[in-house]
Amino acid sequence: MSIKGSIQGFSKLSKKEKIAWVVDQYLNGDTQASEVLSQHWNVDEKMQQTFDGFSENTLSNYHLPYGIAPNFLINNQWYAVPMVTEESSVVAAASSAAKYWSKRGGIQTKVLGVEKKGQVSFTWSGGHSTLKEHFPQIRTELLKGIQLIESNMQKRGGGVKDVVLLYLGEQLHDVYQLKATFDTCDSMGANFINTCLEQFASTLSNYAQANLADQGRLEVIMSILSNYTDNCVVEARVSCPIDELKVNNDRINHKNLANKFKKAVDIACHDSYRAVTHNKGIFNGIDAVVLATGNDFRAVEACGHAYASRTGKYRSLSECTIHEDQFTFTLTLPLAIGTVGGLTSLHPLAKMSLNILGKPNAKELMQIIAATGLAQNFAAVKSLVTTGIQQGHMKMHLQNIFNQLGADDEEKAYLNEHLDTSKVSHSAVRQLLDAYRTESSSNV
Amino acid sequence: MSIKGSIQGFSKLSKKEKIAWVVDQYLNGDTQASEVLSQHWNVDEKMQQTFDGFSENTLSNYHLPYGIAPNFLINNQWYAVPMVTEESSVVAAASSAAKYWSKRGGIQTKVLGVEKKGQVSFTWSGGHSTLKEHFPQIRTELLKGIQLIESNMQKRGGGVKDVVLLYLGEQLHDVYQLKATFDTCDSMGANFINTCLEQFASTLSNYAQANLADQGRLEVIMSILSNYTDNCVVEARVSCPIDELKVNNDRINHKNLANKFKKAVDIACHDSYRAVTHNKGIFNGIDAVVLATGNDFRAVEACGHAYASRTGKYRSLSECTIHEDQFTFTLTLPLAIGTVGGLTSLHPLAKMSLNILGKPNAKELMQIIAATGLAQNFAAVKSLVTTGIQQGHMKMHLQNIFNQLGADDEEKAYLNEHLDTSKVSHSAVRQLLDAYRTESSSNV
Repeated sequence: MSIKGSIQGFSKLSKKEKIAWVVDQYLNGDTQASEVLSQHWNVDEKMQQTFDGFSENTLSNYHLPYGIAPNFLINNQWYAVPMVTEESSVVAAASSAAKYWSKRGGIQTKVLGVEKKGQVSFTWSGGHSTLKEHFPQIRTELLKGIQLIESNMQKRGGGVKDVVLLYLGEQLHDVYQLKATFDTCDSMGANFINTCLEQFASTLSNYAQANLADQGRLEVIMSILSNYTDNCVVEARVSCPIDELKVNNDRINHKNLANKFKKAVDIACHDSYRAVTHNKGIFNGIDAVVLATGNDFRAVEACGHAYASRTGKYRSLSECTIHEDQFTFTLTLPLAIGTVGGLTSLHPLAKMSLNILGKPNAKELMQIIAATGLAQNFAAVKSLVTTGIQQGHMKMHLQNIFNQLGADDEEKAYLNEHLDTSKVSHSAVRQLLDAYRTESSSNV
Repeated sequence: MSIKGSIQGFSKLSKKEKIAWVVDQYLNGDTQASEVLSQHWNVDEKMQQTFDGFSENTLSNYHLPYGIAPNFLINNQWYAVPMVTEESSVVAAASSAAKYWSKRGGIQTKVLGVEKKGQVSFTWSGGHSTLKEHFPQIRTELLKGIQLIESNMQKRGGGVKDVVLLYLGEQLHDVYQLKATFDTCDSMGANFINTCLEQFASTLSNYAQANLADQGRLEVIMSILSNYTDNCVVEARVSCPIDELKVNNDRINHKNLANKFKKAVDIACHDSYRAVTHNKGIFNGIDAVVLATGNDFRAVEACGHAYASRTGKYRSLSECTIHEDQFTFTLTLPLAIGTVGGLTSLHPLAKMSLNILGKPNAKELMQIIAATGLAQNFAAVKSLVTTGIQQGHMKMHLQNIFNQLGADDEEKAYLNEHLDTSKVSHSAVRQLLDAYRTESSSNV
């Protein structure tokens, strides 16, 4: 018997039974809730089954807007970048910055490295020197042990690049690591890496049992890839003479814009409180493309922010220079993503995103994503040092409030005209709309 | 005239025109693509309009599985936690850890702080001492200037808590900041904070113009909230005697489990390469609830990972202790989220998530999210130090491969029985399935 609110065997229930249980136990039997959930199912039953299969205990699909930021000129090639984000202004900002820079030579990108990493952590009681002595032999065994697993990846040009032995130091008594580096070609590579590492762990244990049993005890703690791919890095850059920063109708002189922009980025390089928000803006762009292409944004976020803290202080991932009147803005960040495997071909819109981007390989996608992050960052900082962030943001947010209050086109036009946009709030909009509606109906 | 691949006025096009342009320019006129996009629209036109309004240049909705992790016992109350994630195993792992701990006293959580922050950065040429001297008067003006903006928030018990003046130091010549702290109650508070800050900036400029014009030049660089909310922090904890860690059918002794578990967490506390992956796992849980409740995962990620690096080295956000045979596992992290405003009531499934969670206030939601992150982390580390990560993961991933290859239930049963699960790959599954299908059809 279950206590109210808890359940045995939930995962074994059918989707309808799961929904019924949640509605009964947590939604006071509200039957409208099941309608809302089923309203978000895909009309194609087979496709819905695919979505359900991505995760567990699925009741429905959470919809996130799928949009397009056109006019990205990256290394002289045009792209329309698919973006998935729930945050207003993000796609508009990326589009606007992409267009701006497409008139100033576009965005230049390059991949600085594609190395993935993995670790087998283990304890060994027999001392560092014994292990070091045996390591050449162990290494040979390790590489031999994964030949079968590696063969497909090697055909594609990838595989295990190296395995080294690390001692984690005095603080972690007797803990050692095998640290391996991989090239996983166009796949993100998590499954390949983890399978290799688990095989390494098994080979290592066997070796110790066969050859080192009388010298110490070896126990594997865990085998898993590292998401900190600090040598899988991409750079995106825009640059132009300060004179060309000029924009029609801008309220700010181009020299002043360049200087304020640089100052804003410098502040994010020195002040962690600012840096977090600055980088958050970069990831608004990055994650939207990562999501749209079926990649894993938690991996990208964790790695990117750890990279931002690599000097011992959390800093901006982008930097700005002005040399001899040339303005340059550069973003450098690690990006471990894939264009094959995972959800990239399973999720219909992830697949479509890759098609829209011209079926890029992983290196190309890294560059597209970095370019989008740079554009996003440029738009945000430019807006911050000129009009401020609220003007554009509230304009977007207003449309959500209008929709929520069920305003029709005529009412929206009235509200847009009569609202004091400097002090917008949900209640202010509601008041104005209520007043307008009362007046309209009394005029009928 | 547009160059192929680029466009003027894309945002002004209707949704159908936008799709037509993308299909024409980037998908070789493939008309199936527009069908796939429209297949993901919501059947309710009004609701679809709402989704379209969240972002810009929207063509469709990106579906992410919306699932439930039941059996969370948090501070003696049961929860079924809605999670949105595209990654397999995440919901299963959270559910399993929640159930495990519900039998060992549940998860204990507490909020350690709810302070939000914002910054106005500016340059001032007249030296620190003049500014410091005037600051008491400036501060009074700043607070006076936002009275109207603040009044609603004050009624709810929040508002501006303090404003201080900071000099950013020698490296950033002449740069100062107003750093303000806020209590934004149950809203995430970005709009409120940014509106206050822009008003601060305007008051500050006016003050300088009126009273300091002969002593120096003051120019505002930017006004914006800080996502680094290192005093908006929540803690989640599980604890039990080591004896009770015992699980039926586990291949590992409970003492050994406790020790290996602690060692694994200790490694993540010392080694950044491991810490990034360890924390990534925590955010698998965190982000899934953040998304499901209409909050902003980029803000939560940026803040959480910067917090993980606050000692000068990137470390684990969770820690494990064993004292007198008592096992304790604790997660501490900053979480700036909201349960009112933003998308929380606009997105139908975000609203539903909050209903399922019993309409929590922001502090309660912080605790639920942290509990989910802890459960996720516990499940991942437990799996790593026992069976390894691949066994469970490949089982889940296999289902996706089956679905992609269009296997029916009978075929799935055959594959499950005959696959060598230690070496699963897409091609291995396809080969086995092809062979089975050939044989079946020749038997007809």
